[in-house]
Amino acid sequence: MGVVVQNIERADRAIIDALAECGVATVHEAQDRTGLLASYMRPIYAGARIAGSAVTISAPPGDNWMVHVAIEQLRESDILLLAPTSPCEDGYFGDLLATSAMARGCRGLVIDAGVRDVRDLTAMGFPVWSKAVFAQGTVKNTLGSVNVPVVCAGAAIDPGDVLVADDDGVCVVRRADAAVVLEKARAREANEAGKREKLASGILGLDMYKMRERLAAEGLKYV
Amino acid sequence: MGVVVQNIERADRAIIDALAECGVATVHEAQDRTGLLASYMRPIYAGARIAGSAVTISAPPGDNWMVHVAIEQLRESDILLLAPTSPCEDGYFGDLLATSAMARGCRGLVIDAGVRDVRDLTAMGFPVWSKAVFAQGTVKNTLGSVNVPVVCAGAAIDPGDVLVADDDGVCVVRRADAAVVLEKARAREANEAGKREKLASGILGLDMYKMRERLAAEGLKYV
Amino acid sequence: MGVVVQNIERADRAIIDALAECGVATVHEAQDRTGLLASYMRPIYAGARIAGSAVTISAPPGDNWMVHVAIEQLRESDILLLAPTSPCEDGYFGDLLATSAMARGCRGLVIDAGVRDVRDLTAMGFPVWSKAVFAQGTVKNTLGSVNVPVVCAGAAIDPGDVLVADDDGVCVVRRADAAVVLEKARAREANEAGKREKLASGILGLDMYKMRERLAAEGLKYV
Amino acid sequence: MGVVVQNIERADRAIIDALAECGVATVHEAQDRTGLLASYMRPIYAGARIAGSAVTISAPPGDNWMVHVAIEQLRESDILLLAPTSPCEDGYFGDLLATSAMARGCRGLVIDAGVRDVRDLTAMGFPVWSKAVFAQGTVKNTLGSVNVPVVCAGAAIDPGDVLVADDDGVCVVRRADAAVVLEKARAREANEAGKREKLASGILGLDMYKMRERLAAEGLKYV
Amino acid sequence: MGVVVQNIERADRAIIDALAECGVATVHEAQDRTGLLASYMRPIYAGARIAGSAVTISAPPGDNWMVHVAIEQLRESDILLLAPTSPCEDGYFGDLLATSAMARGCRGLVIDAGVRDVRDLTAMGFPVWSKAVFAQGTVKNTLGSVNVPVVCAGAAIDPGDVLVADDDGVCVVRRADAAVVLEKARAREANEAGKREKLASGILGLDMYKMRERLAAEGLKYV
Amino acid sequence: MGVVVQNIERADRAIIDALAECGVATVHEAQDRTGLLASYMRPIYAGARIAGSAVTISAPPGDNWMVHVAIEQLRESDILLLAPTSPCEDGYFGDLLATSAMARGCRGLVIDAGVRDVRDLTAMGFPVWSKAVFAQGTVKNTLGSVNVPVVCAGAAIDPGDVLVADDDGVCVVRRADAAVVLEKARAREANEAGKREKLASGILGLDMYKMRERLAAEGLKYV
Repeated sequence: MGVVVQNIERADRAIIDALAECGVATVHEAQDRTGLLASYMRPIYAGARIAGSAVTISAPPGDNWMVHVAIEQLRESDILLLAPTSPCEDGYFGDLLATSAMARGCRGLVIDAGVRDVRDLTAMGFPVWSKAVFAQGTVKNTLGSVNVPVVCAGAAIDPGDVLVADDDGVCVVRRADAAVVLEKARAREANEAGKREKLASGILGLDMYKMRERLAAEGLKYV
Repeated sequence: MGVVVQNIERADRAIIDALAECGVATVHEAQDRTGLLASYMRPIYAGARIAGSAVTISAPPGDNWMVHVAIEQLRESDILLLAPTSPCEDGYFGDLLATSAMARGCRGLVIDAGVRDVRDLTAMGFPVWSKAVFAQGTVKNTLGSVNVPVVCAGAAIDPGDVLVADDDGVCVVRRADAAVVLEKARAREANEAGKREKLASGILGLDMYKMRERLAAEGLKYV
Repeated sequence: MGVVVQNIERADRAIIDALAECGVATVHEAQDRTGLLASYMRPIYAGARIAGSAVTISAPPGDNWMVHVAIEQLRESDILLLAPTSPCEDGYFGDLLATSAMARGCRGLVIDAGVRDVRDLTAMGFPVWSKAVFAQGTVKNTLGSVNVPVVCAGAAIDPGDVLVADDDGVCVVRRADAAVVLEKARAREANEAGKREKLASGILGLDMYKMRERLAAEGLKYV
Repeated sequence: MGVVVQNIERADRAIIDALAECGVATVHEAQDRTGLLASYMRPIYAGARIAGSAVTISAPPGDNWMVHVAIEQLRESDILLLAPTSPCEDGYFGDLLATSAMARGCRGLVIDAGVRDVRDLTAMGFPVWSKAVFAQGTVKNTLGSVNVPVVCAGAAIDPGDVLVADDDGVCVVRRADAAVVLEKARAREANEAGKREKLASGILGLDMYKMRERLAAEGLKYV
Repeated sequence: MGVVVQNIERADRAIIDALAECGVATVHEAQDRTGLLASYMRPIYAGARIAGSAVTISAPPGDNWMVHVAIEQLRESDILLLAPTSPCEDGYFGDLLATSAMARGCRGLVIDAGVRDVRDLTAMGFPVWSKAVFAQGTVKNTLGSVNVPVVCAGAAIDPGDVLVADDDGVCVVRRADAAVVLEKARAREANEAGKREKLASGILGLDMYKMRERLAAEGLKYV
Repeated sequence: MGVVVQNIERADRAIIDALAECGVATVHEAQDRTGLLASYMRPIYAGARIAGSAVTISAPPGDNWMVHVAIEQLRESDILLLAPTSPCEDGYFGDLLATSAMARGCRGLVIDAGVRDVRDLTAMGFPVWSKAVFAQGTVKNTLGSVNVPVVCAGAAIDPGDVLVADDDGVCVVRRADAAVVLEKARAREANEAGKREKLASGILGLDMYKMRERLAAEGLKYV
């Protein structure tokens, strides 16, 4: 506790932006179905789809002092990520902090706790994925750490890892894997386009994926 | 496990469509306050109001193989309904499966688990009522069954039963009861129209329903 | 049980309306971070921001008889607040009751249980903050009380207390404290306006709040 | 609502008693992994292992009137099973009702709600599997039904079905299937005895079940 | 925040002790089914049954500083009661604090959060009713208050109120009502003894409470 | 997926055993309040206190194939740890697997899912900390991995890390830190012994820890 790591490495901006376009479900599949945060992490408004480098915060329950410290570490296109050291749903973050974070180019917040001022945040276009919307105020009395490894909503996240977030939730991509994952995600997308057309025309997945034989072998019975 | 029932009976299309117009709350009351699925079943977007015949899926946790099998069984105006064999919130269903289901006339999905690609599903106008929005991918390794009786979100559902779903949630109507329930639902609606007018004019429910006497008899005291 | 208190005192209308404009987060902070209802109390639609005097209902599980009784006690700008005597998510309230409540000037409903007909309520512009959306019908067989002190979603509320509700949730202000809390809330707002501007210009909270020295004293280390 | 079915059929007593000896996990497996009630159904004390015919109660939330009605329907070795018509954790049942039920030969209670007087029930040796321990009292104002089909903790149960309950939870066996399930359960037990000995001697499941080849075929890699 | 009320009034010791003997369910019924804390408040070991005057603590999440302050306020036969200012399950209390509290005559702890060292507390015979068992440590940085009104697990509690706790959970009795509630609780117990005997002899509640006529009037049908 | 790491490093046996004696709460504090698994991880019986090296399993929902694979990797004094790839409470583990694991010297199981046969496991003295007790059976169709890093119940765990588990829950100690953490835990224990004696004699924590001055400085008021 009480450590701020200052110059974390980040993935390439072009790769990050391209991952955002792929979206959570595709990126998650592209890295062998790993990296999802828990399903209780929901966006405060529909339609946002972002990616960015994680500036991580490990914060005590009910204490948002470290958010102020973390904002100084933000660079263009980063995403703030806060994991409390024990379960908490207090509103660590509101419109003033969002104003400050946006001034530094921050693209959004992922927080395994609460957020408040959601009406203002929505109006500002500052997206947040959180465990709760809760106005409960916090104090500034106890140190935490910034840019240390954390577990957030069930996912292990290192500072500088790429976060992808949209209406489906949040997915983390290891910084070192970002380029490879992007490649696989794009391949997947290209592949899906063709499938979508066939399915729309009425061809069944059973036929398109040639499942009938294996289903029969497993013993599926039609009655 | 491992059974697909192919030619289930369905209720009359006109009755199904009329039940959709009545909506969940009215239908539920019309059948003596029965048939609701648990309140955690929420729509992925507001405003949809549908009804259809249930094509049921009993699926293992984290395995969506049977969804492909079930889609072949869909007919115009059906609704897919998936109940996992143990609690699960994986994303069994996304935009490709929705494309395929829509191509067969499917009106929506009710799933006691997760759904993904909700941005695309919203854009496509394919409504889903689910326990979770979660991108977690699934496998295709273990058989389940299609068109067998299931318990979904606390409600017992037979294939061919009528599902009614709107912003209030989901309600099941037994196929054999559909006509009678519709009749009662319409009577209820007609009855409510008059009440609504009176209440809007300022007449109290206490007077309209003649409750004062019974309240006094039960011992209600005004102080 | 079985008591209706008829002529409760209310706070001044102008104060109530001004509290609505401040919103939940600001009011909560202005009274030393107290008064919030639990975070599971969510609005049925986004964008409503209201305040009003609480007409409280203590109701048995699954029995909405007392809602009818309470509506008679409503005055212009009141808010209905229902706390069940044990945990319950039944739909105590729908569009007919809302029609009746609106006819008496009611501004909305706060209910530690379920609500139904949310599509209609949204269309009518009658806001509700609830624990659940659930169509489950209720009976009218057992007495409760109206305008007695209750605990609702973790907050102690007396009849006539001021409820403030918006997208962040619900906060209660003691009737006797309403004027003082408003004053503090406005001071807070005035103060925040200046801060917002500075933060938007890129000045850090660390500097604006002069936190660096105290952080160093606590032992924060930059690496 | 408001129906009591009086002379339900029951399975053979000897079969019921033998199912109790097999226990929940074995019986569940013997019927193809079906029939379990949700995992939140926990015993009020450890060590009980019973089976009996279900006398079912469908009760309104917070109203235990029908429990009195159901007790009259109990026969030697039955088990009471209560499912509320909407989620509820009130304490429908305590030591007086247990005294009455025991006087009629009842073996225990399975309740998707609350129970109270658990100290007395433990002393009396009356086992209960419940969703909650909660002293919240109930009323006797609204009818429900006895011996009708219900869904309890996620499982569909008909009156006269066999309930098996132990420290692992509760499982339902269809009355008509009881004999066949018992046979399979016993075969399973006989089979397990031999396996247990081998495993205890250090033989690996990988070898005993000959899994290595299939694992390799699926691509498992040892590094 | 930051207030310690020192000389709270307490109920008569003899009354408190007699309420303990009645137990939670009886006391709850004796005061018209009010006063229960939520069902998630569970004892760390079975068999304890206590009553005492509440010394209340309002504490910030994750900060147990006020527990030390509160212990000084304890008198013989008191019970510590802690309510966090926002939901928290940290382990505010362990064996050292229990040692200190016991040295002052404290009978137990009721905490809407976590407790730890439960093995030691069990060995010491110091009973605790809590929301969680969780070893998560706390800090001592932020003030709360002692002996102020709180809401704990859904119940409003004033300092000096009587807490009754046993295997069924926790119930609060208003200090001013303690004598009257005791009287009613004893009357209830006397009444129940006779009923228990009759029920044990096989007399049905339907007959003992003369329910048959009212059930028939409500429309109950036997088939 | 589909990887088994065979020769993981482990901490020194003497250190592991000594950490078990310190217990979860002390070890957690000794490493700066880190490493706890979520509070929902509860022991199936009271009184066990163990430590061991983690042999980790990453398993698909509802598929326990990898448990068989992992058992081969167990060495004397290891602890099995299973994290499903998405939330699941199926009963991956029962008495047969425990028999096999015990034959290889395994000390217990930590599983972020369900366990069954708890009566037998208790009789065998094989302790388990789990999210649920649930008899739901699993299949053996899909690969996972053994001895890879996992997140289990909110804690990041590497194979070979030391798990400490007792009635308070489960804590992980990084393998490389085990010796240092033990040293700190022992120092803490020695320190606590003296404190316990003082507190038992009636000395207040307020005085023993010299808190009064700091409390006054923060503004605590006695009234």
